[in-house]
Amino acid sequence: MLYRVTHLPVPLTGVVPPLCTPLTPSGDVDVRSLVSLVEHLLDAGVHAVFALGTSGEAAFLSDAQRDEVLRITVETVAGRVPVLAGVIDTATARVVDRALAAAAHGADALVATAPFYAGTHPAETADHFRRIRAAVGLPLIAYDIPQHVHGKLTAPVLLRLAEDGTLAGLKDSSGDLGAFRRLLVALRERGLDGTFAALTGSELAVDAALLAGAHGVVPGLGNVDPAGYVRLYDHARAGRWPEAAAEQDRLAALFALVDAGDTATMSGGAAALGGFKAALRALGVIDCAATAAPQRPLSEEAVAEVRRRLAEGGLLPA
Amino acid sequence: MLYRVTHLPVPLTGVVPPLCTPLTPSGDVDVRSLVSLVEHLLDAGVHAVFALGTSGEAAFLSDAQRDEVLRITVETVAGRVPVLAGVIDTATARVVDRALAAAAHGADALVATAPFYAGTHPAETADHFRRIRAAVGLPLIAYDIPQHVHGKLTAPVLLRLAEDGTLAGLKDSSGDLGAFRRLLVALRERGLDGTFAALTGSELAVDAALLAGAHGVVPGLGNVDPAGYVRLYDHARAGRWPEAAAEQDRLAALFALVDAGDTATMSGGAAALGGFKAALRALGVIDCAATAAPQRPLSEEAVAEVRRRLAEGGLLPA
Amino acid sequence: MLYRVTHLPVPLTGVVPPLCTPLTPSGDVDVRSLVSLVEHLLDAGVHAVFALGTSGEAAFLSDAQRDEVLRITVETVAGRVPVLAGVIDTATARVVDRALAAAAHGADALVATAPFYAGTHPAETADHFRRIRAAVGLPLIAYDIPQHVHGKLTAPVLLRLAEDGTLAGLKDSSGDLGAFRRLLVALRERGLDGTFAALTGSELAVDAALLAGAHGVVPGLGNVDPAGYVRLYDHARAGRWPEAAAEQDRLAALFALVDAGDTATMSGGAAALGGFKAALRALGVIDCAATAAPQRPLSEEAVAEVRRRLAEGGLLPA
Amino acid sequence: MLYRVTHLPVPLTGVVPPLCTPLTPSGDVDVRSLVSLVEHLLDAGVHAVFALGTSGEAAFLSDAQRDEVLRITVETVAGRVPVLAGVIDTATARVVDRALAAAAHGADALVATAPFYAGTHPAETADHFRRIRAAVGLPLIAYDIPQHVHGKLTAPVLLRLAEDGTLAGLKDSSGDLGAFRRLLVALRERGLDGTFAALTGSELAVDAALLAGAHGVVPGLGNVDPAGYVRLYDHARAGRWPEAAAEQDRLAALFALVDAGDTATMSGGAAALGGFKAALRALGVIDCAATAAPQRPLSEEAVAEVRRRLAEGGLLPA
Repeated sequence: MLYRVTHLPVPLTGVVPPLCTPLTPSGDVDVRSLVSLVEHLLDAGVHAVFALGTSGEAAFLSDAQRDEVLRITVETVAGRVPVLAGVIDTATARVVDRALAAAAHGADALVATAPFYAGTHPAETADHFRRIRAAVGLPLIAYDIPQHVHGKLTAPVLLRLAEDGTLAGLKDSSGDLGAFRRLLVALRERGLDGTFAALTGSELAVDAALLAGAHGVVPGLGNVDPAGYVRLYDHARAGRWPEAAAEQDRLAALFALVDAGDTATMSGGAAALGGFKAALRALGVIDCAATAAPQRPLSEEAVAEVRRRLAEGGLLPA
Repeated sequence: MLYRVTHLPVPLTGVVPPLCTPLTPSGDVDVRSLVSLVEHLLDAGVHAVFALGTSGEAAFLSDAQRDEVLRITVETVAGRVPVLAGVIDTATARVVDRALAAAAHGADALVATAPFYAGTHPAETADHFRRIRAAVGLPLIAYDIPQHVHGKLTAPVLLRLAEDGTLAGLKDSSGDLGAFRRLLVALRERGLDGTFAALTGSELAVDAALLAGAHGVVPGLGNVDPAGYVRLYDHARAGRWPEAAAEQDRLAALFALVDAGDTATMSGGAAALGGFKAALRALGVIDCAATAAPQRPLSEEAVAEVRRRLAEGGLLPA
Repeated sequence: MLYRVTHLPVPLTGVVPPLCTPLTPSGDVDVRSLVSLVEHLLDAGVHAVFALGTSGEAAFLSDAQRDEVLRITVETVAGRVPVLAGVIDTATARVVDRALAAAAHGADALVATAPFYAGTHPAETADHFRRIRAAVGLPLIAYDIPQHVHGKLTAPVLLRLAEDGTLAGLKDSSGDLGAFRRLLVALRERGLDGTFAALTGSELAVDAALLAGAHGVVPGLGNVDPAGYVRLYDHARAGRWPEAAAEQDRLAALFALVDAGDTATMSGGAAALGGFKAALRALGVIDCAATAAPQRPLSEEAVAEVRRRLAEGGLLPA
Repeated sequence: MLYRVTHLPVPLTGVVPPLCTPLTPSGDVDVRSLVSLVEHLLDAGVHAVFALGTSGEAAFLSDAQRDEVLRITVETVAGRVPVLAGVIDTATARVVDRALAAAAHGADALVATAPFYAGTHPAETADHFRRIRAAVGLPLIAYDIPQHVHGKLTAPVLLRLAEDGTLAGLKDSSGDLGAFRRLLVALRERGLDGTFAALTGSELAVDAALLAGAHGVVPGLGNVDPAGYVRLYDHARAGRWPEAAAEQDRLAALFALVDAGDTATMSGGAAALGGFKAALRALGVIDCAATAAPQRPLSEEAVAEVRRRLAEGGLLPA
C-alpha cells in the first residue's frame, strides 16, 4: 500500500486525542478494535491522532506491540490527518531507538518526555531533546507530564528549544495552567506562536486553555467523546465562550467515569484507563475493555457506573 | 471608634486580594504602610480583603503581630468591604484559638487550611472544619493550598461540608483547574452554587476560572495591581472574554516580578513575596520592602528588575 | 517548690524518649497520667525526656496545653534528668515565642525544626536557628523530620551551626542513616563530636546508629518500653553488639503496634500515636488512650491487636 | 567458549557490586574497560556482580548496549561468581522482554523493579513480579528503589512473594533501614531467611544492615573500593563490629566523591556516577570517565577533587 506523505501543520492545531490501545482478553493488540477506534475519532472530525501516549498505555506495551499499534494506526488513518507517535522511554539512547522505529512506521511527528527513572538537570533535558531531534528527521513535540516523569519542563528550556527549532510544540499535561499561560505569553512576545504548537493535555480546562491562546488539545476523554471536544474547539475558535464552557462542563461531568474503579483495589491509572475502555466498549467502538498487565480490571459494578455516566452525558440512551 | 457590622455576601464574589503585611526594617508591622495598602486596594474597587494568608506571611508572624495586622485592617476597612482572616496553624485546637482571636478583632469570615505538619485522613479533615465552625460563630472558608499543606482537599469532603453548612466557600490555591471545574459542576448539580463561594487563588487563570463559573478570585498579584484584577473581573462578568483574556495576559507578564529574586540564594517564597513588596514600594504604596525573618531580601539588581517589570506592565513610567 | 538547676550534659547522650501527651476523654491534658508516664520513663532509667515533640502531639495542642504539659513534666522530673522542650511552629517569630515560654517553664534545652508551611533556603534555615539561639539562653537542638517539615536539614548547615555554637545537637528523624553516618564522620573530622550530640529518632535502627557513633536515641516506642531501649543502649555502650541487635529485633517486632489502626479510616499518625497510647493504657501507665482532635480513635479490634503485640513482646502476660 | 553453569546460592550472600558501565568518549560500551572493571571486582573477592542496575546506567543504555554489557560481563566472569542482570523497564511486558534477553545472554538471576512511569497498586505490583517469574526460568530479585520508581515495595507484598517462591530476594535501595529491619524480623518469624536473600543497597549502612541480619550488600561505591566492602563484610561475618564500623566510616568518608560534581550545572545522578567513573579512571581501572548522554561530565576541578578523596581514603598515593 502507498502512504500519502503527510506534513504536520505549522503550528499543529485542533483536537488531537491520545489514542487508547484496545487489547484482546489475552493481552494482544486488538487490531479490529483499534481500526474501529481510529475511525470513531476521524468520523468526529479530530485534527490529528496521538498514538502511544500515556492513555495508549505505551509504558505497558512491548516494542513489538508499540510497533504494531503505530503501523495499524498509520495504515488506518491513511494520511487523512497527521499521526503523532509517543516515544516514551527512560533516556536518550532508548528514545532515539523508539523514534527511529516510529519514523520507519510512518509517524508524522514524535512526542517525547524528558528522561525519567533517573532525573536530569534542565541543561541535560535540553540536550536530550536536541539529540532526539538530530537523530530523527521528524518534528518533535515535548511531553510535559510531571505526575509520571517526576519533573516539570521549565519555560527557559522550552523557549530555547522553540527558538532553535528543536521543538515543534509542547503537549502540556502538567495541569499547571498558570505556567502554561506564562509560556503562551512568552511565545507571543518572541514571535514563536506561529511555529510552536502549545497543546494542553488538561481535558477539563480546554475552554480555558483556548481562551489563553493554546493551539490545541490532547484529551484522553476525547477517545470516548471526540465529537464533544470538536464542538468545544469549534465554539472556542468562533469566540462562543459561554457555549464552549457549557460543553466543557458536560465533558467535566462525563469525566467522572474515571472514578468508577475502586482505588482501594487497583491503581488510579488502571481505574482511569479502564473507565475509558469500558465506555468505548459500551459505545460499541471496541470489543474488550481489558487494560494491559499488571493493571487490574474494573468490577461489574464499576462498569455499570460507567454506563450510567455515559447515559447522563447523553452518549447512551438513559 | 464604632465598627459597622458587616455581613459576608452569600455567596462571596469578586476580587479579594490576600493582603501583604508591610514590615519596618526591624521587622515590626508597619502600620502606616498597612493602612496605605488597604486604601490602595479599596480605591481600586476590590470586593473584600483577606488578611493573614500565605501572601500575608502569616506563617512568619507572631500571634501579637497577627492580631495587630487584623486590628489595623478591620479599622481601616471600616466596614466598606468584608475582611476575611486567615487562621493558619497546625491543627484544630490551635486554629480555634486563632479563630477566636480573629473574631474578637472583627473579622467577617475565617479562612482555614486542613491540618498540616501532621497529615490527616479526609474524615479527620472534615471533623477539623466542623470543630472550627462550631467553636466560632463566623462563616468559614476552606483554604486548599497543597504546596504548603502537603495534601489536597477532596471534592467529597468539600461537598459534604458545603451541604451541611460548615463551609461558606473555598479558596482554591491548588492550581488544579480540572478538579476545581469538577467541583463547580458538582456544586451546581446539588444546587449549592448560590450559597457556597468557589474562589480561585490561581492568579494567572482568573479568566479561565470565571469562565468555568468561579465566584471570585484571591490573587496575590492583586496587591500590586488591584485595578487590573477588577477590570478583568468586570470584563468576565460582562461576558467580554477576549478583553478578559487580554487583561489576564498583561497580568501574567507582570507576574514575572516574582522571578526577580535569585533562588540560588533565597527561597522561592521569599523571592515572590519580596517581589510583590518591592513593587509596592516602587509604586509608593508601602515604605519598606522587607519580608519577615528568616527570609532573605532581594538584591538591588532584583529590585531594578522588578521596576522594569512594572514599567513594562504600564504601572510605572518607562 | 524548688527546682534543681539542671545542666544539659555536653554532649547529651543516652535514651531520651519523646514524651506522649496523655489526654482525658474530653481532650484536656491528663495530669495524673502525664505524671505516671514520666515516672514510668524515669523508673526505667532514661537519660532525659523530650516533651512536646511529634510523638507528644505538639502540633495538635494549644499554647495553653503545651505550657501545661511542660510545667507538669518539669515539676515531675524535678531535676532528676534534663527536660528537652519541643518548640514546633511555622517560622522564627513564632518559634521564639514558644521558646521563651519553654524557658519560663523550666526547660533545659530546646528542640526546633526548620520553618515549615513555607519552605526556606538553607541560608534562611541557618539564620532561623541563629535567631532562636540568640533570643533564648538555652541549648538548642535541631530537629530534622522531613516527613513533617518537607525539607531535610543539610550537612553543611548543621556543621556550620555546630561549629559556631548555635546548635548543641541534632535529633535526626529523617530515617536517612547514610546521611547521618556521613555527618558523624564529619563531626569527628572537625573535632565536634565531643560537644555536638547526634541523636537518632530512628527507633528501629538504634543499634546501627550507636555502632556508627551516635550519642543517643529519641525513640517514640520508648514511651511503651523504655526499659528495652535502656537495655539496648547499655548493650551497645558495652560493645555487646549481638545482644544489642537482639533487643532491637524484639523492639522492631513490638513496633507493629503502630499498624493496628486501619489507615483506610484514619491517618497513619493517628494510628501510630493511638497505638502507643493504647499500649500505655493496657500497661496501666495512663488512663485514657485518646489522641487529640481531629485524629480518629483506634477501633476495639485494633486495641485488641495492640494487646496481642504487647503480649508477644513480653510486656503483658500472654 | 563454554559457559559453566552457575547456580545462584540459596540464599545469595556477600558483596555484590552493581557494575558501572564504562563508555568510550563517543558513548559506546568500552569493552576493554568493562573487562578490566569486572576483573578489578573479582580480584577483590566479591561474591557476585550485578550488571545493568542504576549504577550501570541501564536507564541510559539502548537494548543493544544492555545486551553487549551483559554478554561481556558473563563471558568475563566465566562462572567464577553469579551474574545478576537488571531488567529495568516501565512495566511487565517490557520487563519480560528484557528478562528473556538476559536469560539468553547467560544471566544467573534477574533484578526487577515494580512498574514505574505509571504507578501501580500493591496487588498489581505482586502480579507484575509473578508474571516475570512465570515467563523466565531464572531466580528473581525485587529491586526497591523509591527515589527512581516513586513508590516503595511493601512488606506484605514482599512476604507473600517470598512465601510463594516468586522472589529469591530483595535489593533494598530505599534507605529505609527501619522497614528493612522489620522485614528481616518477619522473614525469620516465617522461616524464610534461609531461602530469601535480603540485600541492602545502602552503601553507608552496611555494618548496620549486616548487624540486623542482612544477607549481603549491593554497594555502588563497591565499584571503586571492592576490597573495602569485602573487608567490611568479613569483619561483620566474624562479629568484629568495631572493625566493621571503622571500615564503614572510611568508606563513608570516601563516598564524598559523589559530591565533587556541581549540581547547579548537572544532575545529582550524573555527579554521583561521574564521581565513581572518575575514580575508576584515576585508579587505572577504566579508560574514560564519560557517563551516558544526556548526562553532563564532571569539570576538571571536580575530577581533581575526586582524586583528593581517593588519596584521603588511601586508594591513591597522597
